[in-house]
Amino acid sequence: MSDVRNIAVHHAHEQHQIYLENLKKFISIPSVSTTPAHDGDTLKAAEWIQSYLHNLGFEHARIFQTKKHPIVYAEMLDAGSTAPTVLIYGHYDVQPADPLDKWDSLPFDPIVRGENLYARGSTDMKGQVMATIYALEAIIRTGKLPVNIKFIIEGEEEIGSPNLAEFIESHKDLLACDFALNPDTGMLAKELPTVTYGLRGLAYFELILRGPAQDLHSGVFGGVIHNPAQVLTDLIAGMHDNVGRITLPGFYNSVIPLEDEERAELSRLPISDDFFIKNSGASLLWDGENGFSPVERVGTRPTLEINGIYSGFIGEGAKTVIPAYAMSKISCRLVPDQDPNEVKKQFENYLEQKTPKTVSWSLKLLSGAPASISDRKSHWIRSFMLAAEEIWGVVPVYKREGGSVPVVNDFQKILGIESVNIGFSLPEDNMHGPNEKLHLPTWHKGIDTLIHFFFNLTS
Amino acid sequence: MSDVRNIAVHHAHEQHQIYLENLKKFISIPSVSTTPAHDGDTLKAAEWIQSYLHNLGFEHARIFQTKKHPIVYAEMLDAGSTAPTVLIYGHYDVQPADPLDKWDSLPFDPIVRGENLYARGSTDMKGQVMATIYALEAIIRTGKLPVNIKFIIEGEEEIGSPNLAEFIESHKDLLACDFALNPDTGMLAKELPTVTYGLRGLAYFELILRGPAQDLHSGVFGGVIHNPAQVLTDLIAGMHDNVGRITLPGFYNSVIPLEDEERAELSRLPISDDFFIKNSGASLLWDGENGFSPVERVGTRPTLEINGIYSGFIGEGAKTVIPAYAMSKISCRLVPDQDPNEVKKQFENYLEQKTPKTVSWSLKLLSGAPASISDRKSHWIRSFMLAAEEIWGVVPVYKREGGSVPVVNDFQKILGIESVNIGFSLPEDNMHGPNEKLHLPTWHKGIDTLIHFFFNLTS
Repeated sequence: MSDVRNIAVHHAHEQHQIYLENLKKFISIPSVSTTPAHDGDTLKAAEWIQSYLHNLGFEHARIFQTKKHPIVYAEMLDAGSTAPTVLIYGHYDVQPADPLDKWDSLPFDPIVRGENLYARGSTDMKGQVMATIYALEAIIRTGKLPVNIKFIIEGEEEIGSPNLAEFIESHKDLLACDFALNPDTGMLAKELPTVTYGLRGLAYFELILRGPAQDLHSGVFGGVIHNPAQVLTDLIAGMHDNVGRITLPGFYNSVIPLEDEERAELSRLPISDDFFIKNSGASLLWDGENGFSPVERVGTRPTLEINGIYSGFIGEGAKTVIPAYAMSKISCRLVPDQDPNEVKKQFENYLEQKTPKTVSWSLKLLSGAPASISDRKSHWIRSFMLAAEEIWGVVPVYKREGGSVPVVNDFQKILGIESVNIGFSLPEDNMHGPNEKLHLPTWHKGIDTLIHFFFNLTS
Repeated sequence: MSDVRNIAVHHAHEQHQIYLENLKKFISIPSVSTTPAHDGDTLKAAEWIQSYLHNLGFEHARIFQTKKHPIVYAEMLDAGSTAPTVLIYGHYDVQPADPLDKWDSLPFDPIVRGENLYARGSTDMKGQVMATIYALEAIIRTGKLPVNIKFIIEGEEEIGSPNLAEFIESHKDLLACDFALNPDTGMLAKELPTVTYGLRGLAYFELILRGPAQDLHSGVFGGVIHNPAQVLTDLIAGMHDNVGRITLPGFYNSVIPLEDEERAELSRLPISDDFFIKNSGASLLWDGENGFSPVERVGTRPTLEINGIYSGFIGEGAKTVIPAYAMSKISCRLVPDQDPNEVKKQFENYLEQKTPKTVSWSLKLLSGAPASISDRKSHWIRSFMLAAEEIWGVVPVYKREGGSVPVVNDFQKILGIESVNIGFSLPEDNMHGPNEKLHLPTWHKGIDTLIHFFFNLTS
C-alpha cells in the first residue's frame, strides 16, 4: 500500500509545473459572483472545471443551472459499493478584486513571486479546489481511486450560497455519500496542518424601536418624550452583564459545556493574543466572557454582536431631533446545541421584559443556522490527521472556527452527513483583500496530504 | 392717556381689512431661506419690509448685505432720549413648503378660511412681524410713538441665523437699546397670552469611538475584539442613572434650583400630558428626571438626547461585521447657569472614566449656547403682562421654553440686553408643517395688546 501512495506522490511532484500552469488558467477567469458584468466569467469558470473533470475521466460531469450561477457536478464511482463515497465541496467563484490600486500585480493575471502565487482566487479557493483534483489525478494516473468521489462545485459561495440548499434538497440521491470533504477552511500557521471540527452557527436579527410619530424638536419635547435611540442603547447595553455574559433569558441553557480534554486540545493552538491583534488592527483584546481564553471565546462560546445601528440625524453638522425610531442589526454566533429559533424567543422574552411602554418594538430573524460540530475521533477525520502528520511531521491541530459555513449545516441537515473541514490557505494569504496569494510549498504538501488521505479512508 | 390708546386701538380695528391685504402681499413672497432658487425672493421680502417701514416714516430704513440673506434695519427715535428704546427683532424668511401635496391650498397664495389665514409664513413669523408694525402704525397714524423703536429683521432664522451674531457684534452702536421685543414665541393656547421668560441653552456634541482598523468578520473576531458599537451603547446607557438623572460628573453643579414660587407659577400652565402626547404622536409620556413635572422637565431642567447614532451595516439584509467605529450626535439642553464648555469638560471626564481601553474616543462640541432667563418682574415684562390682561381679560402665563433661540443669547451677550419673548401664534398653527395658518381673531388681539404694551412702557 505504501507503494501506491509513494508512486502517486512522486507523480504529483513531477507534475508541479503543469499543475501550476493549469491552476493559472483557472484563476485567470475573473469569476466574480457578486458582479453581474462577470456573469459570463462565472459560467466560463464552471465550464472550465467541468471540462477538466471530464477529461480526467469523471462521469456525468455536467453543469446545473440555478437562479444565478451554475453548479458543477461530476462523479467517479469505480471503487465499488463497499468503498466509501466522498462528496467534495468547492466553489469556483471569487471575491471582487477592489481596491485595484492596492494590488502589486493584476489580480487576474496570476504571477509567482518568491514562494507565492499572487492572484484573486489563488487561495480562496481555486487553489484548494485544484489541490483536491490534482491529488485524485495523481492517483488516477498511477493507478485506481480507492474511494468513490462526487464533486459539487458552486459559484455563489462569496454571495452567501443563495441557491445551494435548494439544489442539495432536490438532488439528495445524486449527492448521497458517506461524508463530505470541504477544503474551504485553512491552516492556523505554516507547517501546522489544521482540522476545523466546529463551526459556530448564526442568528441574525433586525430590531426596530418606534417612539413618536415623527422626528421631534428636542428642545420642545426633550425631557418628556422617550428617545427611541436612548431606549435602544439601554436595551443593548443590558444584553451583556458585567462579566461579559449574554443576558437573554435562557441563552446558555442549551450550550454544551467544554470538556477538559477539548480545552487542553484548544490550549495547544498557537493562537496568541497577538494573532488577533495583528489581524484586526485593534489596540487591545477585549476581555469578553469571563472564564474563557480568547481561542475558546472565538470558537466555542456564543456571542452577541452589534453589526449595525442607526437612528436620527447622522449627516454632517447638527440637527436637534428626537428620532422617531431606532434600528439595530444584532447577531448571535451560536454553538452546539443552540437553536436560532430558540434564541429568537429568548430575544423576544428579553424585549418583553425590558422594553419600556414608551416605545414599541419589532424583531425579525433575518437568517439563522445552528452551529455544527464533527466527531474529532471519526474515521474520516482520523484519516486526515494521519495523512497530515505523515507529510508535515507534526500532529495537526483541531480548531473550532468562529465563523459559520452554511454548506456544512446544509449537508448535515439535508444529507445527514458530516464534513471534514480542512484546507491549505494561511492566515497571511490576504483572503478577500488585495494581493491574495497561495503559498506554493504549503499547497504542494497539501496535495501530498490529500493523496495519503484518500488512501487512508480505506485502510 | 387712556384716550390715546383707545384711539389707536380703534384705528387699528378700522384698518383690519387693509392690514390683512398688506400681510397677504408680504406672505405671497416665497422667501424660503434654505433654497438658493429662492434667493431672489428673500431679497424681495427684505425690500418689501424695508419699503413698508420707510413709507411709515421710519428713518434710515436700509438693507445690510450679509454673506447670505440681507438684514433689514429701520429706526424711529422721535420719542427722545428720556424715553426707552425698544429693539424689535423679526425674520422675514420662512421654512420650505414641502410636502406640497399635504396642503389644502397653495402655500404662497394666502387664503382666509373661517377664522384663519392659511399660508406658509402666516404665523411663523410674517404675521407676527406685521402685528408689531401695525401696532406702531396705529399709534403713528393717530398720534406719536411714546418710545424709540429700532427694527432688526433678518432672513436667516430658519437656517440657524449663521450671520446674525457677527452683524450684531459689528453694529453695537446702531442697535443700542434698553431691551428687545421678540415676537417669535407663541401662546400656549387660544385666549391665553403667554410670556416666555426662559429659554434652554444647547451643547451639541459629536462622539466617535474607534476600535479595529477596519470592519471585521464577526465570526472570526466575535468574542475577542471589543465592538465599538457595543461600547457606544454601554457609554450612552450609562449617561442616565435609574432615576433619569444625567451622570456626567458635575452636570448639575451649576443648575439653579427651581424656587417654590416659580414652580407654583409653572403648575398653573394649561399643559397636560395630553398636550405633549398629541403633539408628538408618542403613545405615552416618558417619566424622565425623577421629581419634576413634564412642564418643569421641558422648560427648567437640562436634558441629554441622542439626536443620531450610527455604526456598521445599516442597509437591507444582513452583514456580519464588527464595525471599525461608532458615532453618535448627542446634545444637552442647558438651563441657567450651565456653560456649554463646562459641559464639554464634564463629558470628557465621563469618557475618560468610563471608556474601556479597547477603543479610542474623540469628542467635538459642534455648537453651544447657554440658557437665557429674563427677570419676570422687569418693567418691560410687566408692561406686556398688563397690556395682555387688559385685552384678554386673563392674567397671562409665564413659560420657560425647552428650545433655544440663539438671538436672545446674542442680544444678551453682545448688547447686554434682555428680551421680552412673546407672540400670537398658537400650538395648532402647524408651524413648519403643511397648512400653516394664522388665527385672525388672536392676531387682532395681539395688535391691540402691542398698542397697549408700547404705551405701558412709559407709564
